[in-house]
Amino acid sequence: MAVESESGVKVLIVAALGGNALLRRGQRMDQAVQQRNIDAAVRSLATLASAHRLVITHGNGPQVGLLALEQEAYRDAEPYSLDVLGSETQGMIGYLVEEALREALPSREVATLLTQVLVDRADPAFKRPTKPIGPTYPEATARSLARERGWTVAPEGDAFRRVVPSPAPQRILEMAAVRLLVGHEVTVICAGGGGVPVVTDATGAWHGVEAVIDKDLTASLLARELRADLLLLLTDVDAVRAGWGTEDERRISMATPLALRRERFAEGTMAPKVEAACQFVEATGNRAAIGCLDQAAAVLRGLAGTNIVRDGITPMSFWPEATPAL
Amino acid sequence: MAVESESGVKVLIVAALGGNALLRRGQRMDQAVQQRNIDAAVRSLATLASAHRLVITHGNGPQVGLLALEQEAYRDAEPYSLDVLGSETQGMIGYLVEEALREALPSREVATLLTQVLVDRADPAFKRPTKPIGPTYPEATARSLARERGWTVAPEGDAFRRVVPSPAPQRILEMAAVRLLVGHEVTVICAGGGGVPVVTDATGAWHGVEAVIDKDLTASLLARELRADLLLLLTDVDAVRAGWGTEDERRISMATPLALRRERFAEGTMAPKVEAACQFVEATGNRAAIGCLDQAAAVLRGLAGTNIVRDGITPMSFWPEATPAL
Repeated sequence: MAVESESGVKVLIVAALGGNALLRRGQRMDQAVQQRNIDAAVRSLATLASAHRLVITHGNGPQVGLLALEQEAYRDAEPYSLDVLGSETQGMIGYLVEEALREALPSREVATLLTQVLVDRADPAFKRPTKPIGPTYPEATARSLARERGWTVAPEGDAFRRVVPSPAPQRILEMAAVRLLVGHEVTVICAGGGGVPVVTDATGAWHGVEAVIDKDLTASLLARELRADLLLLLTDVDAVRAGWGTEDERRISMATPLALRRERFAEGTMAPKVEAACQFVEATGNRAAIGCLDQAAAVLRGLAGTNIVRDGITPMSFWPEATPAL
Repeated sequence: MAVESESGVKVLIVAALGGNALLRRGQRMDQAVQQRNIDAAVRSLATLASAHRLVITHGNGPQVGLLALEQEAYRDAEPYSLDVLGSETQGMIGYLVEEALREALPSREVATLLTQVLVDRADPAFKRPTKPIGPTYPEATARSLARERGWTVAPEGDAFRRVVPSPAPQRILEMAAVRLLVGHEVTVICAGGGGVPVVTDATGAWHGVEAVIDKDLTASLLARELRADLLLLLTDVDAVRAGWGTEDERRISMATPLALRRERFAEGTMAPKVEAACQFVEATGNRAAIGCLDQAAAVLRGLAGTNIVRDGITPMSFWPEATPAL
């Protein structure tokens, strides 16, 4: 049964799939592995979303890192810059997600839109890289790669990863096209990898920049621009945890932006997710949820993951009909 | 001044940019080289197209070949299949073209749509690879690579290149989205590399296949579906040549499909371009033109390249106002 929002238009869900959930830490970065993860994620999401309008965005951390390594391994052409690699991952992941969606929802029109996102040249992120990309390395290997290639590396769990600048998204350049397609009930895949970061100058010239925008912050901007009914941030962890990194760590099942903003979360991974969810909830009053990609259907229903809602009052925003009374 | 077709709608031009024209034979396959070629091509095209609706498609032969080489050079992940590499090149080239278009036509909405194209599993092309991809090699190197990697290689000029199957495009899966965007005057980049070739089976499952669809045949299908007023096939040669490979070779400035079908052209390069142009002209009665990407504006005007028109009668189809009387 189709659920309609107040305006009589079908409910709109923006779902962001984590790049790390599509190609997991420790998994071989092979095509078959990635395809299986994407197929499972899309099936899980599509079951419940079949009656709603759906926009899918995705991360690209492991994928963009892999492309960079492959290009460095080949000696007869210079490696391309990060913005170009980002656009390649949008093509690749968009293709795999689109194919999975076409199987899961055969009656839907599906389209993947390449997305560029305006960032600010003066964003302090350019001086302080925080976004992990590519595989993890033992510390000694990471340090030696950093010296050789001019990378910045940072610890993640027991290992190290390359980190790059992650400026805040300012404006999605293809917003008119996204709006048009969504308005005609096309299921849209866009803003992959947070969108290709670009800047403009006084002459009207456009340039890509060597950075990776946080895909959850772009997903939040997209969801706000579309006035989505629900923002789902799906990753490889089951919930947001309070007291992160302390002995008193515990899963949060529901929280307000105000409560979440008092906590501290892992920079470059959970912190931007929480920020993205809070920005969406504050701007729209609608629900955001952060949870595990494996449990997408339950997270969509509000039965798994962390729900972020306004004011701590039972939200009036979209919960699928399967949700039990709260 | 905007030129309008009979229906009062702005004239629609479908322009296909050759992958070899974006990254030329013998040029280093570096990003800066490709970006310069794309910028020049788009500027040249945009000047005259500024008053019209424009859809841009592009080839990806050199680019998909480069990605394949890079992935083979890296040992910690399996190389991805050709359909996935094709989707990566759609992202990359789409991004570079979109950025160039945004500079050349700042008031236009621009969007790049990832495109998948249905092909027939039983297409005889799967048994006879003809589409050249990647760089050229001396014969001995090519033969040794063919043995090592299971490639098929074929001569091109004085050198050899890898060739892959090139099945005929049957249906563009995202056609509804393309139509919607074009109808709202968004300048669309799509069907890159001929589209990612996919097949479907009785269970409704979709699979990508190891092939590269000829981008001119897909551009022709796209132009027919959109009932375009003009199909431009822009490449790295200045015109179609009659008596190809003989002493009596000469440039053709205008011809009918009937006359062209009597000639023989280079398989995998000029032959599919001529076929694509003929199919479009026969189906719509409108003009197609094949010419050099460097001379895009003159080809658009009908002042350079080869014009393909119906019946040898001065065509009623679209010629820009700058065209002298024929």
